[in-house]
Amino acid sequence: MPQHVVIIGAVALGPKAACRFKRLVPDAKVTMIDRDAIVSYGGCGIPYFISGDVSDLKELRTTSFKLVRDEKFFHDCKDIDVLTRTEALRIDREAKRVHVRNLDTGALSEIPYDKLVIATGAAPRRLNIPGEDLPGVHAVANLHDATAVKDMISSGSAGRAVVVGSGFIGLEVAEALADMWGLEVAVVELMDHVLPRNISPSLARMAEHHLAEKGVELYFGEKVLAVEGDGKAQRVVTDKRTLEAELVILAAGVVPSGELAREAGLAVSPRGGVLVDEFMRTSDPDIYSGGDCAEIKNVVTGGTMHLPLGSMANRQGRVIGTNLAGGEATFPGAVGSFAMKLFERNVAGAGLTPEQAAQAGFDALSALVIQFDRAHFFPGKDLMTLEVTVDKKTRAVLGIQGFGSAGDALVGRVGAVAALMQKGCTADDLSVLEYPYSPPFSSAMDIVNTVGTVAENMLAGMNQGVSPEEFGRLFEQKGEACFFLDCREQDNAAPYLERHPGVWHNIPQGQLRERLGEIPRDKAVVLVCNTGIRSYEAQITLEQAGFKDVLNLHGGMAALKQSGEDPNAE
Amino acid sequence: MPQHVVIIGAVALGPKAACRFKRLVPDAKVTMIDRDAIVSYGGCGIPYFISGDVSDLKELRTTSFKLVRDEKFFHDCKDIDVLTRTEALRIDREAKRVHVRNLDTGALSEIPYDKLVIATGAAPRRLNIPGEDLPGVHAVANLHDATAVKDMISSGSAGRAVVVGSGFIGLEVAEALADMWGLEVAVVELMDHVLPRNISPSLARMAEHHLAEKGVELYFGEKVLAVEGDGKAQRVVTDKRTLEAELVILAAGVVPSGELAREAGLAVSPRGGVLVDEFMRTSDPDIYSGGDCAEIKNVVTGGTMHLPLGSMANRQGRVIGTNLAGGEATFPGAVGSFAMKLFERNVAGAGLTPEQAAQAGFDALSALVIQFDRAHFFPGKDLMTLEVTVDKKTRAVLGIQGFGSAGDALVGRVGAVAALMQKGCTADDLSVLEYPYSPPFSSAMDIVNTVGTVAENMLAGMNQGVSPEEFGRLFEQKGEACFFLDCREQDNAAPYLERHPGVWHNIPQGQLRERLGEIPRDKAVVLVCNTGIRSYEAQITLEQAGFKDVLNLHGGMAALKQSGEDPNAE
Repeated sequence: MPQHVVIIGAVALGPKAACRFKRLVPDAKVTMIDRDAIVSYGGCGIPYFISGDVSDLKELRTTSFKLVRDEKFFHDCKDIDVLTRTEALRIDREAKRVHVRNLDTGALSEIPYDKLVIATGAAPRRLNIPGEDLPGVHAVANLHDATAVKDMISSGSAGRAVVVGSGFIGLEVAEALADMWGLEVAVVELMDHVLPRNISPSLARMAEHHLAEKGVELYFGEKVLAVEGDGKAQRVVTDKRTLEAELVILAAGVVPSGELAREAGLAVSPRGGVLVDEFMRTSDPDIYSGGDCAEIKNVVTGGTMHLPLGSMANRQGRVIGTNLAGGEATFPGAVGSFAMKLFERNVAGAGLTPEQAAQAGFDALSALVIQFDRAHFFPGKDLMTLEVTVDKKTRAVLGIQGFGSAGDALVGRVGAVAALMQKGCTADDLSVLEYPYSPPFSSAMDIVNTVGTVAENMLAGMNQGVSPEEFGRLFEQKGEACFFLDCREQDNAAPYLERHPGVWHNIPQGQLRERLGEIPRDKAVVLVCNTGIRSYEAQITLEQAGFKDVLNLHGGMAALKQSGEDPNAE
Repeated sequence: MPQHVVIIGAVALGPKAACRFKRLVPDAKVTMIDRDAIVSYGGCGIPYFISGDVSDLKELRTTSFKLVRDEKFFHDCKDIDVLTRTEALRIDREAKRVHVRNLDTGALSEIPYDKLVIATGAAPRRLNIPGEDLPGVHAVANLHDATAVKDMISSGSAGRAVVVGSGFIGLEVAEALADMWGLEVAVVELMDHVLPRNISPSLARMAEHHLAEKGVELYFGEKVLAVEGDGKAQRVVTDKRTLEAELVILAAGVVPSGELAREAGLAVSPRGGVLVDEFMRTSDPDIYSGGDCAEIKNVVTGGTMHLPLGSMANRQGRVIGTNLAGGEATFPGAVGSFAMKLFERNVAGAGLTPEQAAQAGFDALSALVIQFDRAHFFPGKDLMTLEVTVDKKTRAVLGIQGFGSAGDALVGRVGAVAALMQKGCTADDLSVLEYPYSPPFSSAMDIVNTVGTVAENMLAGMNQGVSPEEFGRLFEQKGEACFFLDCREQDNAAPYLERHPGVWHNIPQGQLRERLGEIPRDKAVVLVCNTGIRSYEAQITLEQAGFKDVLNLHGGMAALKQSGEDPNAE
């Protein structure tokens, strides 16, 4: 049993590993060191502190029973020593000592360890552009950044903000600035849609439409070249335009802080993440690592990934705590689940997007379903969209992502599928997934089941369709190659018939078998209904009647409307 | 491929099987018959029609795109014939014919089939007591019942209602009557707590406390002997009291309607449920069955169970539809997930309760955790309670149940665990379950992870505790055998010290190591904090110091308060 455990980094994984270990071996000694004066905080709460949802920064540092997690707390309640403002300079693995410097006094010293934990976290990715360090340019990586940004906006010295990057943190901060503080906010993204590492273009269009409704300007495929200004940030220059901004938020991702580990000769990945085995041990069996500075196993691809989330840090920290005490706990890897609130909508997911599945070499298909999030007769119901990506060969679910207004409900579906994916999940598992049923919460055939059945049908060669995004491209050609057939009732279709004469056609699904003669056999037929249910039935009827090229708009008009691509929208 | 499929029963499973089959074999003929004039409705919506949440009964019969699912709908849109008001009298398996009677004309006829589906549903359990058929006594099994109850209350002819049975339907109707219509409602339950087949006494106390807050009277351990009245219901007589009531709701469960199958010589269970294999085939390979009239496999126990839920009917119906078309789809059985709204609280679960696990012969333990349903610093957070029951030998999760105010959030956690249980789930799977993390939706160490870690600790012999229910019994003895030690900060403990001098003691957890001398070593020490986190740490400290008999109140004061058992409550 180790006598002295030293932990470098005291934000999330470090404290969790320390406390778990001490509960198992109460008489052991634990020392945590951290460069910062503030330790053990919920960094993921920073956007909500900026927005004002969290009114006092202290709330991000307190336990659920309101004690501040400072040095005294760790000493009195946990019997753990914390050295703040203490930088780890070097790990001497041979002598089993950490060389440290006190950042206030400059004093150098050495701390001997029996077992060591490296929990050095991650740092915001720098852009390496001129003006990046001007006053007014901030990352949102720690509580000091949070305070600086909040002070700036609450003092009224920023009216216009540019957020660089449209990942989680970028969009969360964009919402905080626009929604609660009324700033004019522009988001600049290098890729061609929001959350490019998390959702497909089809889902991204829905998120972007909502962001635009909320007044957030979005610029895609643009590279930020410089921040300019007279002693402080005043403009952001991209390769396509110049945007006025007193406040610039750098949210172009984070990189693992693996230098200390690499310099100590431990194995690290090309991007700098510390490599660990299933016991969270580094290449030195006396040194553990995890959290934002480490790489973990991607359960879907079998490779490694960098997944900097407080939830991951906590779970890995517990595994390390157990193993420091002589246990053999394992961390099985992750499927990379996520959730985010986006004004009055929410995005959640796990695993690979359709694009990532293709890049990873899978021969996959994706099913997109839009359906009410509870019984369609229950008041307060709203639409939810789920998209699953399935390996054609193994039927394995490679990823699920979704969008909707009821956040807890969306997160619940994604959580259930993510949990299954951790164990291995097929499309067939989804179609019988036992999401608890009662009209106030779910449908008898819940959306999570429907998306499984649609994937099953597609695997069987049925329900061949187009995504809302592909539909937009086809419709731009206005009937040149396609016959657009609306299978809804006549009153739903009428405004579209009027607006797109000769292009938009209507035969209600219940009349289809009698009116097949009205449909040309020399064009692709693109079937449209509200959400894709009737158009799927219509597709079967047409194929039974010998039509060869029939496509069904997945998600129907509802998906087009959510994306701001309703052909009748102004 | 069958030429003619006949389906007896057209509410949930029947239509689903019919439509799925027709999508796979569009040119086959399908005939559905039903005794009722109304078919294909969402029976689970009836309580919400009674409450007024669903304003028009038609909404329970329409598709999500507002078409009424009547005979014409099935003919035009699905190419399926529906014969309503047609009773199946007898199945002649040899001749493959169903003998039927038209309930309007009395005409008898025979319908030949190639494949048959029995979807005869379930019927409310009769009490076989005097007065059961008096006007004013109603089950809530179909839309006719729903109309009768709604007419009665909306006409003002009922001021006081007695609900017999406190299962899902009983409590949902109790809420509808009390909340929306202001009736005085009493619920009479034969067992000793609400939802006796679904949750433990500890969780039931929380639900009962909320029901009492909402003015619902509850009587447990009482048997209804008669309904009395002068030509209509006026009183319910139990073995302990007489309750005035103009409206009596019979909600003492349902029994599968398996008579037709049994009379045809098919295998049925002792309770009358049709027995089927994994392909949903009865003992006659040309006859399928499923839904409320059938027994399905209980994935947790390996036995069979009767699980009358619209969600089950839909999923099984799809399997039958596939197999009618020559497929080999299987229904893997179920873990029995459920959810219900209860005024401003919600209950959900899956699998076995602690009591059911013991009855089924498992050597199991249960972990009860109470924690915020999202980040504790996020506005709008509220407490959620989860209880999991784990097999001590295999570590398998046998059941999960929960209670809380955020329904979607509770259902999400239970849904994730239910999904895992379908594949086989251990306590260890819960502690690393990847519920999507973001402060607006979940905690970095989410409650679903915490309940897994608590179960793991208990399996390892740590965190030995008492349930809120057991605590109540110990506390009644006022310190005779136990030393009650509150480990919260002094200001939290002060009111309890004042109210229970000499019984309630306080040492904040952070001072415990210095003040061990104040604690007697000849009594059991019962540790209490807010939710059980600090009392768990205190337990470790005491055990390290050699205390032998230390118990930790699982769920802490929060659980006591939720149950209405705060020792300082008026």
